[in-house]
Amino acid sequence: MTETSAAPTGTRAPGRPRSREAGAAILAAALELLAERRYIAKISVAAIAARAGVGKATIYRRWAAKEELFTDAVATLRPPLPALAGVSVRDDLVDLLAQVCAEGDSPLDRALGVLMLNDDHLELVVRIKRTVFGPRDEQMRAVLRRGARTGELRPGFPPQTVRHLLVGGALMARRSEGTRPPRDCAAELVDTLLDGLCAAPAADPG
Amino acid sequence: MTETSAAPTGTRAPGRPRSREAGAAILAAALELLAERRYIAKISVAAIAARAGVGKATIYRRWAAKEELFTDAVATLRPPLPALAGVSVRDDLVDLLAQVCAEGDSPLDRALGVLMLNDDHLELVVRIKRTVFGPRDEQMRAVLRRGARTGELRPGFPPQTVRHLLVGGALMARRSEGTRPPRDCAAELVDTLLDGLCAAPAADPG
Repeated sequence: MTETSAAPTGTRAPGRPRSREAGAAILAAALELLAERRYIAKISVAAIAARAGVGKATIYRRWAAKEELFTDAVATLRPPLPALAGVSVRDDLVDLLAQVCAEGDSPLDRALGVLMLNDDHLELVVRIKRTVFGPRDEQMRAVLRRGARTGELRPGFPPQTVRHLLVGGALMARRSEGTRPPRDCAAELVDTLLDGLCAAPAADPG
Repeated sequence: MTETSAAPTGTRAPGRPRSREAGAAILAAALELLAERRYIAKISVAAIAARAGVGKATIYRRWAAKEELFTDAVATLRPPLPALAGVSVRDDLVDLLAQVCAEGDSPLDRALGVLMLNDDHLELVVRIKRTVFGPRDEQMRAVLRRGARTGELRPGFPPQTVRHLLVGGALMARRSEGTRPPRDCAAELVDTLLDGLCAAPAADPG
């Protein structure tokens, strides 16, 4: 799905190498400018064209609007996650979160954070949530459903709250623990939530 | 501490009613402009003065730099949390998180999110973290230490990861569950983490 949206939307010879190169250059230029200027409102199609070394018409042949171009550009930045091993729910959750922890805190990551908070581009934010973050969210939902089914997870846990704890925890961790290996960070988040915080009940003497 | 930093830093008659009113008007004007323009770089001292109905000199008598003014302004927005009941660790954690969940997702909250992601103002971000968010973080650390001491929480839990899960979870929840009462939201986050996700071990037949 992301592949589709990252491809040129025009039908004009999408397979020609020069055309594909131009498409990739345009998307990369859009992200570079986003990292530098942080606001889409500050980035013109002309600026993207100049940075990519193409004419404005080349951009307009592929994308009807700047917002569509940026949705495709962000999709290249947040590719779908790799297929999960599917053996243990714990390991799959660690794999999913390690990706979030690994995404770091670069100028581009920050610009993306700013973009998602920006209510000038609500439609773009909704599209990015649906096409970029939606598939990830669905992947985590599926792992949690599997855990409920196999009995690896306790019955009746609230799945949305579990996703908020894990993804929110990973976002906080990546901002404050930049030097820690993402996998260690993810494993500690997952294991802490799996184990819970309550003290073990006193051993039953009966 | 926050009270101190929210007070005028100058020593010139801080107690005079007109002076206090002007100080409050200046801080409120700074926050209004931050919600509207989102970037401190886009807000001049002259614009703050005009919005507050004071002269620029009045601002410079109180704050040496725009960054100090904004630190004080943000401090008025994120006051220290109320004293906790101190009876149960669970209830204290819910009280702390309910505040985070309640802070909502207004233009000003978004502007603050943008500010914290903005590496043009690293010094300001560090100051805000220390003076505004630091005391909250310390409050949660203290509750977790108490839980370890009283045995309400299991031995050996990683406190920083617990804070990341809870605060990150609350930030995610407040963006996606805007209509849910903040206390319900906070209680579900805390209880889910306290209970953990692992299925209960099979009853020991011995």
